[in-house]
Amino acid sequence: MNTIGHLINGEMVSGDPRQQDLVNPSTNEVTGKVSLAEKATVEEAIAAADAAYKNWRDTPPIKRARIMFRLKDLLEQNADKICELITREHGKVLNDAMGELQRGIENVEYACGVPELLKGEHSKNVGPAIDSWSEFQPLGVCAGITPFNFPAMVPLWMWPMAVACGNTFILKPSERDPSSALFIAELGLQAGLPAGVLNVVNGDKEAVDTLLSDKRIQAVSFVGSTPIAEYVYSTGTANGKRVQAFGGAKNHAIVMPDADLDNAVNALMGAAYGSCGERCMAISVAVAVGDATADALVEKLKARIVELKIGDGRDNNNDMGPVVTRAQLEKIEGYIARGIEEGAELAVDGRGLTVPGFENGNYLGASLFDNVREGMSIHTDEIFGPVLCVMRVDTMQEGMDIIDAHEYGNGTCIFTRDGEAARYFSDNIQVGMVGINVPLPVPVAYHSFGGWKRSLFGDLHAYGPDSVRFYSKRKTVTQRWPAGGVREGAQFNFPSNG
Amino acid sequence: MNTIGHLINGEMVSGDPRQQDLVNPSTNEVTGKVSLAEKATVEEAIAAADAAYKNWRDTPPIKRARIMFRLKDLLEQNADKICELITREHGKVLNDAMGELQRGIENVEYACGVPELLKGEHSKNVGPAIDSWSEFQPLGVCAGITPFNFPAMVPLWMWPMAVACGNTFILKPSERDPSSALFIAELGLQAGLPAGVLNVVNGDKEAVDTLLSDKRIQAVSFVGSTPIAEYVYSTGTANGKRVQAFGGAKNHAIVMPDADLDNAVNALMGAAYGSCGERCMAISVAVAVGDATADALVEKLKARIVELKIGDGRDNNNDMGPVVTRAQLEKIEGYIARGIEEGAELAVDGRGLTVPGFENGNYLGASLFDNVREGMSIHTDEIFGPVLCVMRVDTMQEGMDIIDAHEYGNGTCIFTRDGEAARYFSDNIQVGMVGINVPLPVPVAYHSFGGWKRSLFGDLHAYGPDSVRFYSKRKTVTQRWPAGGVREGAQFNFPSNG
Amino acid sequence: MNTIGHLINGEMVSGDPRQQDLVNPSTNEVTGKVSLAEKATVEEAIAAADAAYKNWRDTPPIKRARIMFRLKDLLEQNADKICELITREHGKVLNDAMGELQRGIENVEYACGVPELLKGEHSKNVGPAIDSWSEFQPLGVCAGITPFNFPAMVPLWMWPMAVACGNTFILKPSERDPSSALFIAELGLQAGLPAGVLNVVNGDKEAVDTLLSDKRIQAVSFVGSTPIAEYVYSTGTANGKRVQAFGGAKNHAIVMPDADLDNAVNALMGAAYGSCGERCMAISVAVAVGDATADALVEKLKARIVELKIGDGRDNNNDMGPVVTRAQLEKIEGYIARGIEEGAELAVDGRGLTVPGFENGNYLGASLFDNVREGMSIHTDEIFGPVLCVMRVDTMQEGMDIIDAHEYGNGTCIFTRDGEAARYFSDNIQVGMVGINVPLPVPVAYHSFGGWKRSLFGDLHAYGPDSVRFYSKRKTVTQRWPAGGVREGAQFNFPSNG
Amino acid sequence: MNTIGHLINGEMVSGDPRQQDLVNPSTNEVTGKVSLAEKATVEEAIAAADAAYKNWRDTPPIKRARIMFRLKDLLEQNADKICELITREHGKVLNDAMGELQRGIENVEYACGVPELLKGEHSKNVGPAIDSWSEFQPLGVCAGITPFNFPAMVPLWMWPMAVACGNTFILKPSERDPSSALFIAELGLQAGLPAGVLNVVNGDKEAVDTLLSDKRIQAVSFVGSTPIAEYVYSTGTANGKRVQAFGGAKNHAIVMPDADLDNAVNALMGAAYGSCGERCMAISVAVAVGDATADALVEKLKARIVELKIGDGRDNNNDMGPVVTRAQLEKIEGYIARGIEEGAELAVDGRGLTVPGFENGNYLGASLFDNVREGMSIHTDEIFGPVLCVMRVDTMQEGMDIIDAHEYGNGTCIFTRDGEAARYFSDNIQVGMVGINVPLPVPVAYHSFGGWKRSLFGDLHAYGPDSVRFYSKRKTVTQRWPAGGVREGAQFNFPSNG
Repeated sequence: MNTIGHLINGEMVSGDPRQQDLVNPSTNEVTGKVSLAEKATVEEAIAAADAAYKNWRDTPPIKRARIMFRLKDLLEQNADKICELITREHGKVLNDAMGELQRGIENVEYACGVPELLKGEHSKNVGPAIDSWSEFQPLGVCAGITPFNFPAMVPLWMWPMAVACGNTFILKPSERDPSSALFIAELGLQAGLPAGVLNVVNGDKEAVDTLLSDKRIQAVSFVGSTPIAEYVYSTGTANGKRVQAFGGAKNHAIVMPDADLDNAVNALMGAAYGSCGERCMAISVAVAVGDATADALVEKLKARIVELKIGDGRDNNNDMGPVVTRAQLEKIEGYIARGIEEGAELAVDGRGLTVPGFENGNYLGASLFDNVREGMSIHTDEIFGPVLCVMRVDTMQEGMDIIDAHEYGNGTCIFTRDGEAARYFSDNIQVGMVGINVPLPVPVAYHSFGGWKRSLFGDLHAYGPDSVRFYSKRKTVTQRWPAGGVREGAQFNFPSNG
Repeated sequence: MNTIGHLINGEMVSGDPRQQDLVNPSTNEVTGKVSLAEKATVEEAIAAADAAYKNWRDTPPIKRARIMFRLKDLLEQNADKICELITREHGKVLNDAMGELQRGIENVEYACGVPELLKGEHSKNVGPAIDSWSEFQPLGVCAGITPFNFPAMVPLWMWPMAVACGNTFILKPSERDPSSALFIAELGLQAGLPAGVLNVVNGDKEAVDTLLSDKRIQAVSFVGSTPIAEYVYSTGTANGKRVQAFGGAKNHAIVMPDADLDNAVNALMGAAYGSCGERCMAISVAVAVGDATADALVEKLKARIVELKIGDGRDNNNDMGPVVTRAQLEKIEGYIARGIEEGAELAVDGRGLTVPGFENGNYLGASLFDNVREGMSIHTDEIFGPVLCVMRVDTMQEGMDIIDAHEYGNGTCIFTRDGEAARYFSDNIQVGMVGINVPLPVPVAYHSFGGWKRSLFGDLHAYGPDSVRFYSKRKTVTQRWPAGGVREGAQFNFPSNG
Repeated sequence: MNTIGHLINGEMVSGDPRQQDLVNPSTNEVTGKVSLAEKATVEEAIAAADAAYKNWRDTPPIKRARIMFRLKDLLEQNADKICELITREHGKVLNDAMGELQRGIENVEYACGVPELLKGEHSKNVGPAIDSWSEFQPLGVCAGITPFNFPAMVPLWMWPMAVACGNTFILKPSERDPSSALFIAELGLQAGLPAGVLNVVNGDKEAVDTLLSDKRIQAVSFVGSTPIAEYVYSTGTANGKRVQAFGGAKNHAIVMPDADLDNAVNALMGAAYGSCGERCMAISVAVAVGDATADALVEKLKARIVELKIGDGRDNNNDMGPVVTRAQLEKIEGYIARGIEEGAELAVDGRGLTVPGFENGNYLGASLFDNVREGMSIHTDEIFGPVLCVMRVDTMQEGMDIIDAHEYGNGTCIFTRDGEAARYFSDNIQVGMVGINVPLPVPVAYHSFGGWKRSLFGDLHAYGPDSVRFYSKRKTVTQRWPAGGVREGAQFNFPSNG
Repeated sequence: MNTIGHLINGEMVSGDPRQQDLVNPSTNEVTGKVSLAEKATVEEAIAAADAAYKNWRDTPPIKRARIMFRLKDLLEQNADKICELITREHGKVLNDAMGELQRGIENVEYACGVPELLKGEHSKNVGPAIDSWSEFQPLGVCAGITPFNFPAMVPLWMWPMAVACGNTFILKPSERDPSSALFIAELGLQAGLPAGVLNVVNGDKEAVDTLLSDKRIQAVSFVGSTPIAEYVYSTGTANGKRVQAFGGAKNHAIVMPDADLDNAVNALMGAAYGSCGERCMAISVAVAVGDATADALVEKLKARIVELKIGDGRDNNNDMGPVVTRAQLEKIEGYIARGIEEGAELAVDGRGLTVPGFENGNYLGASLFDNVREGMSIHTDEIFGPVLCVMRVDTMQEGMDIIDAHEYGNGTCIFTRDGEAARYFSDNIQVGMVGINVPLPVPVAYHSFGGWKRSLFGDLHAYGPDSVRFYSKRKTVTQRWPAGGVREGAQFNFPSNG
């Protein structure tokens, strides 16, 4: 059975005493093992990254960018293989894996423009014959800690820009589905990254804590749940590092009476149930303004849920695959039970689904709750499963108040045709990413990703322009040259023989 | 005797049980008292700032900018009074206070451009008929905690840009010399800031801790010593706030064999002894490359030190005033004694100075150490006094290694005529602000201020472009409009009578 | 009787053989005379500007900006006087003059940020140890030629940014109402502009042609009618100058069936009749989609037109003053007559108005045409008078086709509540400045002003970011320093005594 | 024999009555023919570009960028073939052709970042609830007219960015060496450009004049000699087009007494003689400060010239190939003869060279003039051949005066180690592209290329950031939404049944 190790200093390394099974969520069969790095293994990676830094830092940005160009090509050429690895370990449908990978590739495309993005500001004559400019220099060794739900994309949010900016990098992907990230890192080396510039360590808390405490690590990017994000942020910053830690979400969509309802329902189906709702940008709450809107919305959703195809991720005819683990499946079912107890109306019950041929898989149908209210655990908590809650409000302001009162502030959207409603909503809502008739307002790669409130700890957002600022530090130079040098000297040397 | 209180919600407030004396460093006479805010007083200020936020946030940036224009005028009109307050409580010479104030005004000038600075990025067609843009929205209530050494300037680094970006603000100035900051804040209100938008609380650790823990505070800017900066940063971030905390410094100047030595000496005199060295950008170490350079440098410095005029800050003929407190005076003298013990050569001894008419003042002459070496406490520690250390090295690289090995990385400079030396130095040195023949490379107001290593905790620098990013949070909107609305509808409504 | 001369090299200069009367449009009384500069006079101004250039170019941008700060104060302090001058020579109501001046001041405010705006781009390591950066250097002597309709504002679009960027300037204001521009220029000198940096010459074609042909003039900004704009552009560019020439307009507003009609009517009243329609951004055509919309629109407009107060500009109770000249009055009346002949329906006839006490003034009431069609001269031509044309279309696309077929493409707007209609319109319409429920979409001072098609000759728009690029030229520096200099030299010099 | 036609609407088109021989400069053998487009042929291309515009304009920028990514790959894969075409028709050595191509590819790389580069500026609350933003929309059909000396690179300066910005394009390459540009255009289509988006017409003045006069062409980019550039600029702008026209050059290098002379000589050899000096950025004048500098410089140059290898471009051991035509060869020889007559000292005479096996080729050795003075035709004129002039001056200022007095202001450089000399030179010299110890200061692709004085007609430079502005027009939208829409309506509709 295959054991996944680490990529350190250009070599695949294995041999840690502890290992963990890799499991196919569609069958619960063990497909391999992953080494869990000990502290010493992580330190080996840090040492490699540290050693590679000096030369990499001095490599012109355009040369670093050209490796990103080659990486893009390699990712496209190897897309099928990457998606297969994703689906085997995560369970999502291949098409969905391809969508994830495409989003990841877009971050590589953006990193190809790093010579432009690293430009500093140059000021002539800040004083008489004094100039000043800023440079955005790399930080040194950076680390990324990424979640199971986008095993290929989230690592690509981080390390391509980090290394394009001149840093070296250590990635610790999720130990549940590390294979795609590891394979992509190998493509990075194949594209031309020198050994040590990009390293991958697999592991658990021991690896994370080593990254958070080692003095040579200058910056940490993290994506995961809010409690861990908070831990990573406070630990990392207390250890003098720059940290951005992205946490949980509970994303609401407001559906206005004037919305194009068919369009909204179509959008919500994908946003709520795509990838089994295991997305930090999934819409898990639809807030309908007015009972007429709510009634029509619920009817249309129910009709669409019936048509959903659920099954093994390798079959692109399916809309949803299994959830990631048996434990996660049980947790979701627990939330559904609790929702009923707390008084919400279960309009569609997705529990008890069996997929022929995959009877041991972690399968669960799409569920729909109506009449959900604040305070219910299905509203306060991030379920991370295919469960959509409908809330009913009388006014748009009431819906906005619900959103603003929630702990999380990652994404949100509104369905309306009305310019004023859209503008009022996007201006005032206390959420970092806002869609207007766009259900998953994940910013494109040339903008930046980040929630507000307890969805993000740190100042700077992920990828896009903010990531350039995150992965570089500002140096400001002020320069004046003394008079009386060779220019005037030359005048004195040759006074007579003009 | 006058008691300085707090400015809360547009009103001067006093009455806290605890107070502290205000002392003139030139005479050690008590000139007044300052109220030390209790927790409840600070919370009153926070409540005022919180209440003022909604309207202020919705005030168009150009209107906020116009208040900055008026503030600039008021600062210029009241410059003499402000400088008098600075000198009375801090001790620095009036001219020097005026220099400080001028630097502060430049930050107000920069904040006048906030409509330009707040521009977000707009992308047409991120997908078919889908647009996306970023907005930089204010954070809410922000706080600033500022040090004694630039009582007027450092507050002006912070709150003008913070409020120009749409935040409300609470300033806690140094309790040793709070009067100028308080007076300037009153000018802010006079310029048009609504009550509650800018508040000043005086106090000590109780006030600081309240600001660091209250959930309504979104961001904290701090300038002070490194241990406190670290405390502020780790406490504030653990409480979910955005924090930038600026700490100590030990700024080295490298003097190359080809330097214009008279120019360098002139520059070093001001950079080392100006404001008694109580500046985080003061040059406290001159690193001479080659003994010939060192010998000449020390000789010229000694000759210039003799000519320094030291006395009461109200007399602009003086070059240096007193140090800020008796305790600080004794601490500096202790360092001088320790330097001798540790084997450095005291080339000029500034101790034991008496200024006629100001015999009780905290006076100390300029001191110069030669042959200082790494490990001596006069090199490892920030003395914050008029003590310049000369170190001797054989090569420029050796000098750079000393700088890079130091805990701090605030500012540094090199004196040379050689383009290659300057470029190599500014590229490689691990320091955030670099001067080339500029001894105090404080970035101008339209660039940003920040050190590296343990001189700054946080990602974003003070004032300039970085401060706009610090005092705002990114919101990204993605927008698509549904088809079938009034545009197409209108076509269907009028089909025949074209 | 007072004769207006020129401001050359800091002195008021007069004495040209030719002069022209200045006439008050409200009474047709002669209020003074203006000198018309001969070629030699213009050349004197050019020589002054040329001589002043070298020092001004080397003045740090922040110092140039501070003069703009002072100018803003002086403009605000002298606002009443400036408006009085405008009204006396142009005729517009004082309130309207104040609005114009305020817009002009906003350009001065923007120029205060010139240190930020002039920042170039700095790239580290474009090759190994090679850096490159851009500088935006001034052009030299620039000229501005401005129209009668905004005698204070349009000059302030030009010269503040031009001089803030380090150029020197020659302004030739309209010879019909030159006094406010001349007075403002004097305030510029009072604010601190050195003699020769800003010069004003009054004159006619002789002055214009001198400016267009003299080799020392580097750039010309022009605002006026399209035929003259085209002449200025082709002549100036043929003479090797950088030119931006802003011409005429015919701005259409589309009124959709879902528009907030009261709001639209209110907006149209000001946009069509404010300043007698003598604005290049005036709305002169309202395109109603659907007859129901058109009928309601016309009814509401008629009701409002009745209430308009027309009279002397010094009375702020008036909504409209006189048109600028008797000739212009007759030209407008000619268009009204022609409109009737060509088949349009004159819903309100503003001709024949007499204002008691100002019987000789150039007065004309507001006129409204309904059923205007393409091809009529009231639609093809810019009337520059208080005449609003209503066109009726069945679909929004039909309205857009009318706009796109028109020679001009300055401004346009749409009234709707519908997000999709607004986005489709703003995306596709071939017009440079677009309003969505904003009738006069004049960009704010920190954006840029410019039409499309034959409304603008040149690449770069007026004021805002584009004006910085227009008034500066790019210089790109690439720098590498040779090895073997003092840095390495120093290592060789001291090999043994480390 | 092969006849090169045109690429119109995705098809290779031929059949014009007029044709011209293609000649190999190394042998003067005819290698093929090129069709010279008649007016009707050019109009066919314009019609194709016009028809393709609407869809291309609406294609999201990221999709246009992805075609650029593919184009980069195709250019790299076909590099050898492209270089072979260049060498066959132009004569330059293959290595040199590869350098040219690489520079061209870098422009494609930059165009890959167009989603970032097209971002407009978004301002929230320019007034209460009013937003404003800028969009950079494409122009429509653009044209490029390119010279013989960089047959692959200069077209790649133009059309990749033009089409990436959403324009369609017509390229008219030099009729002497059109094959590489035509082949590259085919690669563009292969990369995914829809038919009609990119068209190539071969031709002479008839084609040029058609492009300059046709109303459908919105913008023209030209590179060539100054007289033609001036004609193109004045004709194109008079026809209402946006034009940038790059002309001739006479680039001077100042050699200071402190220069690293071996480095300078090495740099000058390539800069003066590379590609036979047929580059607009070639250094054709070395200005030595001081006779000692001059003497040493001339000696070292002479020694190096002897070693130059001259021969067929297909042999990469050669340093120089033939000049482009027999006529050009004779013109250069004429200049050499005239230089002698006018009193310059011909230190090395390159005339009369015969290359064995290529006796009919246009071969000429490297020539070196000493003691050249202003006014000599070898100094006033752009020779465009392997002729380097040495001028002797006593001071740096004298050298700068010579440069500033020259008609052209394309590129220049200085050789020095001194920071002050370099800064003074780069600040004050009236030249658009400045090198400090960099002999050919061609800006990298992410900066922009442009000379000053009569080297460039137009405001905006080629490629880099300026090209984005050149190939797009600014549209500014101002938006306010009326109150009383669905948001408030919804509140009224459902008041009781909460």
